Amino acid sequence: MGQGQSIQPISKVADQAGQFGARAAKLAMLMRIGLPVPNGLALSFDATQRIGRGESLSELPKTSGFVALRTSPGEAAWGGVPAMLNLGVTSQTLPGLEAKLGRKSALDVFRRGIMSYGVRVHGLDPEDFENLYYDQLKLSKTLTETGLEELVKDSLALYHDEVGEAFPENPDKQVQMALRAMVKAWSTPTARILRMAKGAPEEAPLGLMIQKMVFGLGPENGAGALQMVDEGTGASSITGRFLPDALGQDATTGLRTPHLATVIEREAAGQTLPSLEEMHPDGLSLLKSATTAATKVLSDAQRLEFTLIGPNIHVLDAIPARRTSRATVRIAVDLAKAGVISREDAVLRIEPGHLAESLHPQVDPYATRTVLGTGLAASPGAATGKIVFTPEAAQAAQSQGDPAILVRFETSPEDIRGMHSAVAVLTVRGGMTSHAAVIARGLGLPCVVGASDLRLDLRKGMLTTAAGETLVAGDIITIDGTAGQALAGAPKMTQAEMTGAFTELMNWADEMRSMGVRANADTTQDAEVARNFKVDGIGLCRTEHMFFQDDRIDSMREMILANSTESRQDALAKLLDMQRKDFTELLRTMAGMPVTIRLLDPPLHEFLPHSEEEIATLATAMNLPVEEVMARAEDLHEFNPMLGKRGVRVGVTMPEIYEMQARAIFEAVVALQAEADPPVPEIMIPLVSATREVELIKDRVDAVARDVRASSGVAFAYDIGVMIETPRGALRAGDIARHCTFFSFGTNDLTQMTYGLSRDDAGRFMRDYVNLGVFTEDPFHSLDIEGVGELVLLATSRAREANPDIKLGLCGEHGGDPASIRFCKIAGFDYVSCSPFRVPIARLAAAQASLLSR
Amino acid sequence: MGQGQSIQPISKVADQAGQFGARAAKLAMLMRIGLPVPNGLALSFDATQRIGRGESLSELPKTSGFVALRTSPGEAAWGGVPAMLNLGVTSQTLPGLEAKLGRKSALDVFRRGIMSYGVRVHGLDPEDFENLYYDQLKLSKTLTETGLEELVKDSLALYHDEVGEAFPENPDKQVQMALRAMVKAWSTPTARILRMAKGAPEEAPLGLMIQKMVFGLGPENGAGALQMVDEGTGASSITGRFLPDALGQDATTGLRTPHLATVIEREAAGQTLPSLEEMHPDGLSLLKSATTAATKVLSDAQRLEFTLIGPNIHVLDAIPARRTSRATVRIAVDLAKAGVISREDAVLRIEPGHLAESLHPQVDPYATRTVLGTGLAASPGAATGKIVFTPEAAQAAQSQGDPAILVRFETSPEDIRGMHSAVAVLTVRGGMTSHAAVIARGLGLPCVVGASDLRLDLRKGMLTTAAGETLVAGDIITIDGTAGQALAGAPKMTQAEMTGAFTELMNWADEMRSMGVRANADTTQDAEVARNFKVDGIGLCRTEHMFFQDDRIDSMREMILANSTESRQDALAKLLDMQRKDFTELLRTMAGMPVTIRLLDPPLHEFLPHSEEEIATLATAMNLPVEEVMARAEDLHEFNPMLGKRGVRVGVTMPEIYEMQARAIFEAVVALQAEADPPVPEIMIPLVSATREVELIKDRVDAVARDVRASSGVAFAYDIGVMIETPRGALRAGDIARHCTFFSFGTNDLTQMTYGLSRDDAGRFMRDYVNLGVFTEDPFHSLDIEGVGELVLLATSRAREANPDIKLGLCGEHGGDPASIRFCKIAGFDYVSCSPFRVPIARLAAAQASLLSR
Repeated sequence: MGQGQSIQPISKVADQAGQFGARAAKLAMLMRIGLPVPNGLALSFDATQRIGRGESLSELPKTSGFVALRTSPGEAAWGGVPAMLNLGVTSQTLPGLEAKLGRKSALDVFRRGIMSYGVRVHGLDPEDFENLYYDQLKLSKTLTETGLEELVKDSLALYHDEVGEAFPENPDKQVQMALRAMVKAWSTPTARILRMAKGAPEEAPLGLMIQKMVFGLGPENGAGALQMVDEGTGASSITGRFLPDALGQDATTGLRTPHLATVIEREAAGQTLPSLEEMHPDGLSLLKSATTAATKVLSDAQRLEFTLIGPNIHVLDAIPARRTSRATVRIAVDLAKAGVISREDAVLRIEPGHLAESLHPQVDPYATRTVLGTGLAASPGAATGKIVFTPEAAQAAQSQGDPAILVRFETSPEDIRGMHSAVAVLTVRGGMTSHAAVIARGLGLPCVVGASDLRLDLRKGMLTTAAGETLVAGDIITIDGTAGQALAGAPKMTQAEMTGAFTELMNWADEMRSMGVRANADTTQDAEVARNFKVDGIGLCRTEHMFFQDDRIDSMREMILANSTESRQDALAKLLDMQRKDFTELLRTMAGMPVTIRLLDPPLHEFLPHSEEEIATLATAMNLPVEEVMARAEDLHEFNPMLGKRGVRVGVTMPEIYEMQARAIFEAVVALQAEADPPVPEIMIPLVSATREVELIKDRVDAVARDVRASSGVAFAYDIGVMIETPRGALRAGDIARHCTFFSFGTNDLTQMTYGLSRDDAGRFMRDYVNLGVFTEDPFHSLDIEGVGELVLLATSRAREANPDIKLGLCGEHGGDPASIRFCKIAGFDYVSCSPFRVPIARLAAAQASLLSR
Repeated sequence: MGQGQSIQPISKVADQAGQFGARAAKLAMLMRIGLPVPNGLALSFDATQRIGRGESLSELPKTSGFVALRTSPGEAAWGGVPAMLNLGVTSQTLPGLEAKLGRKSALDVFRRGIMSYGVRVHGLDPEDFENLYYDQLKLSKTLTETGLEELVKDSLALYHDEVGEAFPENPDKQVQMALRAMVKAWSTPTARILRMAKGAPEEAPLGLMIQKMVFGLGPENGAGALQMVDEGTGASSITGRFLPDALGQDATTGLRTPHLATVIEREAAGQTLPSLEEMHPDGLSLLKSATTAATKVLSDAQRLEFTLIGPNIHVLDAIPARRTSRATVRIAVDLAKAGVISREDAVLRIEPGHLAESLHPQVDPYATRTVLGTGLAASPGAATGKIVFTPEAAQAAQSQGDPAILVRFETSPEDIRGMHSAVAVLTVRGGMTSHAAVIARGLGLPCVVGASDLRLDLRKGMLTTAAGETLVAGDIITIDGTAGQALAGAPKMTQAEMTGAFTELMNWADEMRSMGVRANADTTQDAEVARNFKVDGIGLCRTEHMFFQDDRIDSMREMILANSTESRQDALAKLLDMQRKDFTELLRTMAGMPVTIRLLDPPLHEFLPHSEEEIATLATAMNLPVEEVMARAEDLHEFNPMLGKRGVRVGVTMPEIYEMQARAIFEAVVALQAEADPPVPEIMIPLVSATREVELIKDRVDAVARDVRASSGVAFAYDIGVMIETPRGALRAGDIARHCTFFSFGTNDLTQMTYGLSRDDAGRFMRDYVNLGVFTEDPFHSLDIEGVGELVLLATSRAREANPDIKLGLCGEHGGDPASIRFCKIAGFDYVSCSPFRVPIARLAAAQASLLSR
């Protein structure tokens, strides 16, 4: 581009955002459809750079009239530098302005022009100018013409004193100096850092505009903003604010109470000031048409910034209409239905994570918050209730109809009943994939974990904030699991709302996505939740969660501590009955869909009692001496349970447990053979690190299947697959793939082992690590593409080479994270599996991944 | 090879081991140098296969005289099928035999021939034949000629009854049938499995020999075996056994007491039977010459199996002389010095792991063992002492001059003093790299860990064996850390002996190796041990071990629990003084050699007291309420300490600790600047998983260096490197390598994380896993080439690409494992680092790796 084109009329640059910036191009588009945007000159990125180097732009036409300078950055999201208004006013041009606005307004514009020029170009203190203004106000309540004349004189004197020369009478010089000041402001380190945080590159391009001033001064005039969608819901609704006798900037300063847009809006707000509709009905009509037109041409609901002069309107800017996350869905769907955007665009426009706002009650975005403590936003949504410190107290509260918030150091399997009874959970320890976080997400309970600025003393029954405030059982608090905050009292809430627009959007997303979305569901209840969220199957049923209910844990413990084959067989027989029933119900609930059942995973000691009292009870029940039970429990103790005897290691060394589980699954399948769509269960082996483990377990499971087929006479089908969750499992994926029909990547454990980082212990320093930039993000939240991701890709390519038909999925917590889902789509996965409550998010993210990889 | 060559005179096949098997070729070589080996025919692998397929070998010459069949497997190590003697004896050929041996001996040979043919060819019960023999013995004390005639008649009758036809009178038929029987015996599943355990392929080739019988029957004749090196020490020494009036096989049956070889040997054994030297001085002379000649041509000390007839000898076989591992060294060195083999061959011939026998006292290989319990052979050598159950009791025993054996569930850092005072350690839990195992190897203490068949009850002070035997404190036991056994009482021991031959071999090895061998040494004492073992430097100084001594642990605890910056700084200042002194001593001890110092690695809670009493003491010392100390200790608790806040994670989040350590190192370096060879320390950052961790720590360490340089005026040098021990560290090696000058692979942790397997918890099922073939070997013992090894290779290639000058080493326990050392050589490592007591093993293994990769 030659220098000749570096300055253009704004109206000509609609297609040149790449040279003149997003805002100039946008204004040009609005002009092109006939909206009354004040015209002027657009300066290209190149011209701006020359200004930055100190050149003066010789090709810049002489300034005519009164102008405003505005920035037009390369991308709208980066934000710009505030506009400079009222340039071109001098002692010479003042009479022309007087003719237009009257003497008082003209003087006020002049005074403002001197101040803003002094402050922005020469760095003078705005307070000094404001003091002159307030000095005059002391003399008379409203500024008189004489007062304004004094003020202009004083301002010019202040300027002269501080700058060392007179206020420039030459409009061209004003503009040149102001352009330079704006470029300088764009280049400060602070502005640079703020921009980069919004995604701008280090050298972000900037365009500038020299625009004709439109003065909304005078009683019949004014300035304001208007949008035609409701900020909270996204529904059609005209809202706005209008300030008579004002420049555009005044409308946002809050010094005067603005008028609202319509009678409806005014009455809803209980305001008596007349609405814009009542003051300027024709103006409002024009504004509505303009907003509709802008929305169409800019493909999104707009908020119009305007100046009203007499019966006419002037459009200063059109920015995306203000909206909550929830409103975003409604707006996008409505735009697509109106044909303004395509359905694909509507689907791409929604940040999947923001769907959570629709799925759960939330603290009202406008409510006042008193933050007691901050932790990790482990499970979204908000709930208010009274503090309880034990699962028993949570159950007691529930039975009395009191909502309870369970507060613990962290939770363990024994707390599950308490969690079921609570409305929210708060822990002072633990990370995004700690027990509390995982279970809460599964239950759809708001949850904050790792709130390490709170001090919990269970002995005293006290929770102490960093500020020293003490809370006790029964105190009312609110858990905001979306923000990761514990709040005092009961702030205003918004309710969950899976509206028509939500459903419509999800249906479109399902049509567009190619990757399956399954749920991690352990119980029939979980499975029902998942079905309601239109899931494609179960990707992970953690069978151990079935063993924690009252009657079952006893049999489990007897099995673990049995000291004879007979007593072990007895206990296993009882567990077999329970598991068969579990699987029959689960498979029936999920009829017609795939269900992946993971064989027992945790180390056996997780099932044993911890307190002396419980141990004594168990010893009595088992007719064993207490010391014997304690010694055996102690024998099973592990230093690093995560890296201990669990998963397939239990299966290999105590094969009867997996055999029992396989039998329960197959007998359930036999029981369901008469149904319309008999199930084909997918049996998954956890924690594999060596091929031989798969061979050994597969042999045994196949033998059980033969046995059940022979005794039942039913020729059912099943699949055997492997959970890839150790780095070695990933490295040896080629060998392992030859022995199974599917892989599911357990990216929770794979992340733990790849980093050498326990998810339960990482919470303590994860925030420090993310703040210091050691990790760009919590790797338990969003898949670490560079490290864990490399292992996943390596495993998938080796697995496909060895077994081209292998089915690939992911069932870690990452299955509900949009960035991780995009990664899975690129890796060519067949499905992702996530917590039931994240299914809609994953469905949307999967659709976006499909659209983006088209 | 045509069928024509498939049968050759044995004497012709010296260079055809690949067709006729190792034994036939060996016998041919002995014949070639003129040794009197009975000649005969060698049948090729091909001929043997044809026999196996049921073909009869038409080209086989007619049998002449009396023959023996012997196998000649593809490799000597596989073992063969027992020989079949005395073939060709029939009623027709008996007279010829009588002429040779006299009637009685001839009848005896016939009887033996019938029996062995019946048993081996037709599967008759040998007991039936033996009963006939004992029936005759009942009639007269020694068998008379008539008795023998009866016995032959009865044997022929038994044969006829059982087989259903007469004993074959045709020698050719005997040989054909016997050949078939031997091939069949070679092919049984049991024989196949036993062979494969010795490294044979599934289809292992076999040759056969039809050899002229040499009968050592008659009073002037006999059979025996002789070797000219001492079995226990490898020194020159003539030892052997001789049985007059015997066939070769009889010499090994133990039915009669054999005569020994020399007067010296006889007298040493207190035996009155005349020695071979006294009975057949000329025969012994011939045998000595023959053994020397065989040793030379077969390049190893031999044990000659011979038959003596009149003044002549016949060599039946020459097999490697019997020897203990310790004797192997002496024999190889002596052979090299005698020019029989090269020094390289001598170095290659020693199994490095067997050096341990020379480095430590051992249970005498011939002693009787009463095994109390079995565990993992965690640290080699053996020691006898009385049982103690606490570190305090070990110290008390030491002060009274009593050797003590410390018996624990497992050890923790607090047991270190007790381990120093004990002569051996036994734990009932833990794996090859558990705390007890690692420390014991470092101290050179015999140690058995994970002896899970023992039951320890510390409350009752009782150790119970699987057999129910109970041991208490004070009982004498012996720990055999080489075999992994706890033994009752005090069996006979052999003493450590790093003889001249040992030293000589190690010197040769050092000349041949290109890879450095460093030691993992934490203290000056460790460093001195390592220097005595001729180490090349320290590859890993674990600074945390410096903090467990009495006065230091207090300051460490104060630092950890400090609740103000001042008190933390006070504690750090005390620790700085101690560390500076530690490093000064260590660096001085290792003058002229590289020393790698790892910054603090364990999680801080490892330093805190556990018992309530200790916590109370600490609280008093720190002037804090007990609850406060308990609460803070509880705050630091971790579920999976191995994957917790440790290593660089502590360094990043509490930078003052690493700063203190860096300062201590640099100030030590400054203090040693006047020495001849001022040290250049290598500072190593542990547990890195992200590049940014290295940047952050490097910045801080560099800043401390600048500060110390400025204040001291000394321009010292240092290196900064990274311990690669997380899978992610290995994957991101390219980025990380740009920020450091060396990598040391911490393969203990890398193995833990790659497998998702805690070394402390793996002991419980490792044996099952190895037995089931899930793991071919304990991956904590020998590096898992397929999984962990792939990560190491991937990291080295990425690191070298990013930083071609990077120095690469390994400092896990694998640094002392020969197979892992070979892997390191192939990967192009600069050094390995291991426990001080494994340094000689590593030096030898490194030399072998160099020789093998030439």
